[in-house]
Amino acid sequence: MSATTSRQRIGVLTSGGDAPGMNAALRAVVLAAEHYDMEVIAFRHGYEGLLNNEYLSLKAADVLHVLQYSGTIIKSARCPRFKEVAAAQLAAENLDALGLSALVVIGGDGSFRGAEHLSQYWQGQIIGVPGTIDNDLYGTDATIGYATAVAIAMDALDKIRDTADAMDRVFIVEVMGRHAGFIGLSSAMAAGAERMILPELQRDKPLTVAALVKHIKRVEAVRGPGSYVMVLSEHQWPGGAVALSEQLEAEFDMPCRPCLLGHIQRGGAPAPSDRILASQLGVHAIELILQGATRVMAGIKANQMVAVPLVDTWTKKNPLDENLLRIQHEIFNPVKKSANKPSQ
Amino acid sequence: MSATTSRQRIGVLTSGGDAPGMNAALRAVVLAAEHYDMEVIAFRHGYEGLLNNEYLSLKAADVLHVLQYSGTIIKSARCPRFKEVAAAQLAAENLDALGLSALVVIGGDGSFRGAEHLSQYWQGQIIGVPGTIDNDLYGTDATIGYATAVAIAMDALDKIRDTADAMDRVFIVEVMGRHAGFIGLSSAMAAGAERMILPELQRDKPLTVAALVKHIKRVEAVRGPGSYVMVLSEHQWPGGAVALSEQLEAEFDMPCRPCLLGHIQRGGAPAPSDRILASQLGVHAIELILQGATRVMAGIKANQMVAVPLVDTWTKKNPLDENLLRIQHEIFNPVKKSANKPSQ
Amino acid sequence: MSATTSRQRIGVLTSGGDAPGMNAALRAVVLAAEHYDMEVIAFRHGYEGLLNNEYLSLKAADVLHVLQYSGTIIKSARCPRFKEVAAAQLAAENLDALGLSALVVIGGDGSFRGAEHLSQYWQGQIIGVPGTIDNDLYGTDATIGYATAVAIAMDALDKIRDTADAMDRVFIVEVMGRHAGFIGLSSAMAAGAERMILPELQRDKPLTVAALVKHIKRVEAVRGPGSYVMVLSEHQWPGGAVALSEQLEAEFDMPCRPCLLGHIQRGGAPAPSDRILASQLGVHAIELILQGATRVMAGIKANQMVAVPLVDTWTKKNPLDENLLRIQHEIFNPVKKSANKPSQ
Amino acid sequence: MSATTSRQRIGVLTSGGDAPGMNAALRAVVLAAEHYDMEVIAFRHGYEGLLNNEYLSLKAADVLHVLQYSGTIIKSARCPRFKEVAAAQLAAENLDALGLSALVVIGGDGSFRGAEHLSQYWQGQIIGVPGTIDNDLYGTDATIGYATAVAIAMDALDKIRDTADAMDRVFIVEVMGRHAGFIGLSSAMAAGAERMILPELQRDKPLTVAALVKHIKRVEAVRGPGSYVMVLSEHQWPGGAVALSEQLEAEFDMPCRPCLLGHIQRGGAPAPSDRILASQLGVHAIELILQGATRVMAGIKANQMVAVPLVDTWTKKNPLDENLLRIQHEIFNPVKKSANKPSQ
Repeated sequence: MSATTSRQRIGVLTSGGDAPGMNAALRAVVLAAEHYDMEVIAFRHGYEGLLNNEYLSLKAADVLHVLQYSGTIIKSARCPRFKEVAAAQLAAENLDALGLSALVVIGGDGSFRGAEHLSQYWQGQIIGVPGTIDNDLYGTDATIGYATAVAIAMDALDKIRDTADAMDRVFIVEVMGRHAGFIGLSSAMAAGAERMILPELQRDKPLTVAALVKHIKRVEAVRGPGSYVMVLSEHQWPGGAVALSEQLEAEFDMPCRPCLLGHIQRGGAPAPSDRILASQLGVHAIELILQGATRVMAGIKANQMVAVPLVDTWTKKNPLDENLLRIQHEIFNPVKKSANKPSQ
Repeated sequence: MSATTSRQRIGVLTSGGDAPGMNAALRAVVLAAEHYDMEVIAFRHGYEGLLNNEYLSLKAADVLHVLQYSGTIIKSARCPRFKEVAAAQLAAENLDALGLSALVVIGGDGSFRGAEHLSQYWQGQIIGVPGTIDNDLYGTDATIGYATAVAIAMDALDKIRDTADAMDRVFIVEVMGRHAGFIGLSSAMAAGAERMILPELQRDKPLTVAALVKHIKRVEAVRGPGSYVMVLSEHQWPGGAVALSEQLEAEFDMPCRPCLLGHIQRGGAPAPSDRILASQLGVHAIELILQGATRVMAGIKANQMVAVPLVDTWTKKNPLDENLLRIQHEIFNPVKKSANKPSQ
Repeated sequence: MSATTSRQRIGVLTSGGDAPGMNAALRAVVLAAEHYDMEVIAFRHGYEGLLNNEYLSLKAADVLHVLQYSGTIIKSARCPRFKEVAAAQLAAENLDALGLSALVVIGGDGSFRGAEHLSQYWQGQIIGVPGTIDNDLYGTDATIGYATAVAIAMDALDKIRDTADAMDRVFIVEVMGRHAGFIGLSSAMAAGAERMILPELQRDKPLTVAALVKHIKRVEAVRGPGSYVMVLSEHQWPGGAVALSEQLEAEFDMPCRPCLLGHIQRGGAPAPSDRILASQLGVHAIELILQGATRVMAGIKANQMVAVPLVDTWTKKNPLDENLLRIQHEIFNPVKKSANKPSQ
Repeated sequence: MSATTSRQRIGVLTSGGDAPGMNAALRAVVLAAEHYDMEVIAFRHGYEGLLNNEYLSLKAADVLHVLQYSGTIIKSARCPRFKEVAAAQLAAENLDALGLSALVVIGGDGSFRGAEHLSQYWQGQIIGVPGTIDNDLYGTDATIGYATAVAIAMDALDKIRDTADAMDRVFIVEVMGRHAGFIGLSSAMAAGAERMILPELQRDKPLTVAALVKHIKRVEAVRGPGSYVMVLSEHQWPGGAVALSEQLEAEFDMPCRPCLLGHIQRGGAPAPSDRILASQLGVHAIELILQGATRVMAGIKANQMVAVPLVDTWTKKNPLDENLLRIQHEIFNPVKKSANKPSQ
C-alpha cells in the first residue's frame, strides 16, 4: 500500500464496547470519503489494531450493505495500555508511516479519552463519532446505539408484560447503564413500567426492599390487582435483579421473577434512528476533516450538526431529560398525586 | 353519566387514519388527567362518535397496558360531513350536554381542520395532538406513528436486500406518503436503498423509465453487480410499484420485483420513540388545558414542548431535512461525484 | 346464567405457567364450540376460578382476535390446594351446578394431574390441551408455546452473537427448561451455539469450570479466535449463568458475560406453528368431546391428531430427539471428530 | 486446487429462488463434511457457476455464523440453459475435472429436475436438499424456507389487523405460492384471516367479486362490524390484490386496501424450524453420500430422516393438510354451520 498517492488518506477505527449502528457509521465514513475522493484505512480491534499495524483498506463495495447489522465488521476492543505515553507515540508513528492525515474514532468516552491522549503526540486531525448504547456523552442529543438498546429493552419489557398479566406477578428487568439511566428511563416509559431504579434517582438514604414492597402494595391498592414491572439499571442493587428478586420472595413472600438482559441490548438490527444518526455523523466527520477541524466529536443538537470539543464530551454532564423524568416518575406514578397544578 | 361533578371533565378522540402510538397518547391523556384530578370522556370512531353521542368514560385501569399496541382502542374514522356547519353545531351541543370544558383531538391535518372548524361553534378549549404516520405537520419535529412506519418500511427493505443480494436483482418497494417523502427518505437512508422517488424530488420534467434504467446501469458500472433497491412513495408513478416493475421488465428486459407495503406500515408494536413522544404530547395536551390554551397543537421542537396554532399545522410547510436529503441523494449516490468540496 | 338450555355447555380454563398460544387454543375451543352449537363457560385464573366460581361466558366475538397475543385473556394461576380431595369435590359441585358436561384444561403436566384428580370426583368429560413452553409432555410431538420460546431464545442468541463477534468474547445465556432440554437444544442448534448444558447431558461426574474452559480453548484452537456462546438450561449450574460467568472470570481470567432470559421466553407474538398447533388441538378437544372421549390429552403425532391418556403424559418420558442431539453435540462440535463413519 | 487429495471431495450449490435457511443448510453440509473429513467445493450462482467453473473452497470458518441470515452466501440463480444436453455434459466435465465424487443441490423442483438431468451424464452421486419457500415438494413434511415465509406473512397480517380493527375495513394481502396454497393456508390460520383464496380452493366456476362481497356481508352479519382480512395467493386473481381491491371499491363501494408482500417473504432472520430443518437435512445429505445413495432428496417425514427419489419430488403431489384446510375453511368460517357432527 503506497503512501505517496495524491489522494488524502484517513484512518478509522471502532473502539470500546460495540454499539448497534457502528457499521452504519463506518459505511457513511467510507461513502463520504469516496464522494470527496479520499482513501480510507480501517484499523481492526480499535486502538489495538492501531498499535499492532493491523489494518485494511475499505472501499464502498466493502461496506454498502453492512448498515443493517449490529457489531462492527472491523471489530472493537478495549485497550487499557493506550493510556501510556509509549502507546500514543507508537500509534502516532504508525499513523504517519501510513501517510494518514486524519483519524476518525467511533466509540464512547473511554475511546475519546484515548483520542485526546493521542492528539498530544500526533499532528493529524482527530474526529470522534459517538458510538455507545449508554447515551452518556455531553454535546449530542443522542449517541449511536442508544435507540436500538432502548428498543430491545422495551421489547423485553413488552414480552414480560404479556406473561406478567397472565399471572399478576412482579418482575424485575435489569438493563444496561451503570452510570446513566437513559436506557432505563426510556424503556420504562416506552413499556409503561410501574417502577424504575436509575443511578440518577438514587438518594443519600439507600433504597430498601421494604420501601419497594410498600410501593408495590400502594400501586396495587390504587390500580387493583395486576402485573408490576420494575426496570433496574445495572449496578444499582447489590447482586442485581437476581438478588433483589430473591429478597422480595424470601423477606416478603412476594412472587417475583428476574430477567438480566445483558449484551442482548447490543445486538439485533440497528434501529432506523441509529442508522440515520450514524449516517449523518459519519458524513459529518468527513466534512469536519475537510473543514480543518480536530479534537472534536461530530454531534447533533436540535437536528443540527455540531462539533463538540472532545474533552467536553466526558468532563461535562449529559443529564436525563427533566420532562421525561417528571412524566414517568410523577405524572404516571399512581402513588403521586398532584395538588391540581402542573409543575411548569 | 352526570355533568354536575365538581371535577373538570374533558373529551378525547382519535380521528383520521390510525397511527401507531395513538393508544400511548390516549393513555397519557388519561393518566395525566387522573394525576390532575380530571375526568375523561372518549368518543369512539372520531368525530362520528362525537356526532352520534357514542362515548365512554376512560379511567387509568382502562388504558394502562394499551401503549404497546397499534391501532386505537376507541377506534378512528374519517368523517367528511364534519365540514358542514350543522355538524359542528351538533358536536358543540353534544360537548356542552356532557359538561366538557375541553377536547383533545389526536389525528392529522384533516382532523385539525375539523377541530378548527368546531372551534367556531364551541367555546371549550381544543388541543390537537399530532397522530399521523406521514410526519407532514408543521410545528413539531415528529408526529406520532412516523417512527414506527419508518421502522416497518426499513424492515421490509432489509428483508428485500437479503433476497436481492442472493439473485442480484432490482426491487421496487412502495411506501406511504403521497404528499410528503418523510417515510421514503428515512427508510431509504436507514436501509441503504440505491434510489428513492419522493414527491419532493419530482421535477418539471417527468421521470422516465429510461432515466431509471440509466441510473441502474450506472450504479452497476460504478459498484459492480449486485442488488438495486428503489423506494417509491405512493402516487409518484402511475400504477405504482407493480406498473413500474412491469415496465422495467417489458421495455428494458430488466428483471424486477415489486412490493406494496400498504397498511402494514400502520401496524405492529409502536416504536419506542413513538410511545415516548405520545406520552410527552398526551401529558402536554392536558397541561396546556390547565394553562388555558386553545386551538393549538401540542408539539415538540428541539426537545422542547411547544404549542403551535392549529391553523399553522397545515397552512405552513414541514420540509424534508435538507441535510438528510443531501446525504442520501448526493453523498451516498455513487453516480454523483463531488468537486472535492463539502456543500456546507 | 341458566343451566337448562338445550345446547351442550362445556367449561374451559388455562392453568399453570402461561404459554404463548394459549389464547389461540382458547379461541379454537370457542370457535369450534360455536360451529357445533355448544356453549362455552371459561373459568378465570385456572382451577382457582373453578373453585371460586369465577367464570364468564365466551362467544366467538370475544376471542376472534386474541390469537396474536401471548398470555391468556382468562388468566392463569397455580393452585396447590387443588390436590386436596375437598377441592376436587368442590370443583365437581361447581361444574355440575353450571350444567357443564365437559371441561377442557389447557396447561402442562401439573394441570393434567389436577384434571386426573378431578376426574375421580366428577362424571363429566375431561380433555387436556398441552400448553407449556417446556415441551415435556409425552404423547405429542409439540406443546403449545414451545416454538415461541425457542424463537425468543434464538433471537436473544442471535443478538448476543452480533456483539460477541465484535469483541471475541464468551457469553452464557440461561434459558428455561429445568427438567427438559428442549428449549436449550433447539435454540442452541438454531443459533449455532458452541456449547449447551442441558439436564439430559448431565453425567454422574459433575461438570467443572475447568472442563468448560478446556472446551472453550479447544474450540478456539480448532476454529481460530472468535465468539463462543453457551446455552445453559436453568438449574443446571448453582447460581446459574451469573455465577458461572463470575467463576470463569475469577478462576480463569476469561472475560465472560451472562444473560438470563427468564420470562421473556413466555411473551411476544406467538410463533405461527404455536398458533396453528393451538388451533388444531383446540378444535380436536371439542371433537373429542363430541366423540365421547374423556381423561385424554389432545395431541399431535406425525401430523395426525391423537388422544393420549392423561396419565401417560407425565408418567411416560418425552425424550429429546436423538438425531438433533447427535448433530448438535457431535457433528457440529469441532472437538469431536468422526472415525469417518456416520453413526447410522 | 489439487484434485489428487486422498480426502473425498464433494460439490454444493444453491439454485433457483433463494429460501431462508439455505445458508443454514450450506453450513450443515460443510460442518458435516468436516466431521467426516471431506472437502467441500461450492459453486456460485447455482448451475451457472457449475457451467462457468465459478467456485470456491468452503471450510467451517467460512460458514459458522451464516445460519442467522437469509439469502445464500454462494448466491443463487435460475439457469434455463441447463436443460440442454450440452450444458449437462459440460457440467459433468467440470465436476470430473475438479475430482468431485458427489454434488449436493439445495433448491426446489426446477433445481431437482436439473439434478436429474445432470445424472444422465455424470457418474457421481447427486443429493437434493429441499430449499424453497413454497413447500410444494413431495416426500418431505417441510421444505427449508417455508416456515420463515409463513412467519413473515403472518407478521404482515398481524400488522394489518391492528389497523383494520381501528377502521373496520377490508384488506387483501397477496402472498406467494402460485401453484400451492401452503403459505396462504398457514398464514391465514395463524393470523385468523376471515377468508383465503388458494389455488387448491379454486373451482370449475370462477370466483366472482359478487361472491366475495356476499361473504364479507354475511361475516359481518354473523360477527358484527369489524375488520375483514383476506389472504390471496399470487396468480389467483387477474391483477392480484391491487386489481381486486379496486374492483371491490369501484363495483361495490366497499373500502378496501391491498398489500403485496412479494419478496419480503424470502428475507429476514430464518425461523428456528427452518434452521433446524436445514441443519438436519444438510447433515443427512452428507450421510446419504457416505451411504452410497444418489438421485434422492434428503427429506423428513414424521420426524424421521428419509431419502426420496428425486423424480418423485415433482411428479408426485404434496397436498395441503386436509385437517388444517377443514378447520380454517369450515370450522372457523362463521358462514358454515355444522349439522352438529364432526366430520371425522
